[in-house]
Amino acid sequence: MEQMKWSGAEKKAARQVFDAALQAELSEMLSEFRARAARAVTPEDMWLIADHLAVQRREIELKYDYRYSQLLFVFGRLVREKRIQEAELEALSEEKLLFIQRIASL
Amino acid sequence: MEQMKWSGAEKKAARQVFDAALQAELSEMLSEFRARAARAVTPEDMWLIADHLAVQRREIELKYDYRYSQLLFVFGRLVREKRIQEAELEALSEEKLLFIQRIASL
Repeated sequence: MEQMKWSGAEKKAARQVFDAALQAELSEMLSEFRARAARAVTPEDMWLIADHLAVQRREIELKYDYRYSQLLFVFGRLVREKRIQEAELEALSEEKLLFIQRIASL
Repeated sequence: MEQMKWSGAEKKAARQVFDAALQAELSEMLSEFRARAARAVTPEDMWLIADHLAVQRREIELKYDYRYSQLLFVFGRLVREKRIQEAELEALSEEKLLFIQRIASL
């Protein structure tokens, strides 16, 4: 895994898939946030939303780690969560795809 | 200030004024929060709101300090901010009211 080389084409494809998944997840989060905020009727509701946002923000930062040493794990998780399709990653080498599938199946 | 004694009637009146001011400020904050959340269209908007909430929460905790050693300062500030009226504090002793007025005028 550490020794896998990333070609220019692979990096480009990976970046697109990564960014699209991140933006999609952030959009979901934003929609959920707006809906929760609209339902907030007490200060406690507001603080709970604030706490939830802080947790989500940290989770997003940890989850979307673009380092090449982490990227196959990230994609594996995103496939498992059905946030991306394996077909979107077809530009990656067979070796990388197998690794991603293995992570996705865990 | 440290030596000022609080009678039962003063404590009761102070608690009512304090709680009402706190609830009013929290209600304003909640309205503002809901309005800002409804206008949020990007994840960055959402994170800015989260940052703002964290700051506000800390400010509220610091501002509404019910210790009797702090309470006249709190009321002085609230009068200055026009969040409470001096008339609401008429149950307090003349000495306390003068102190509050002095703080309010700073």
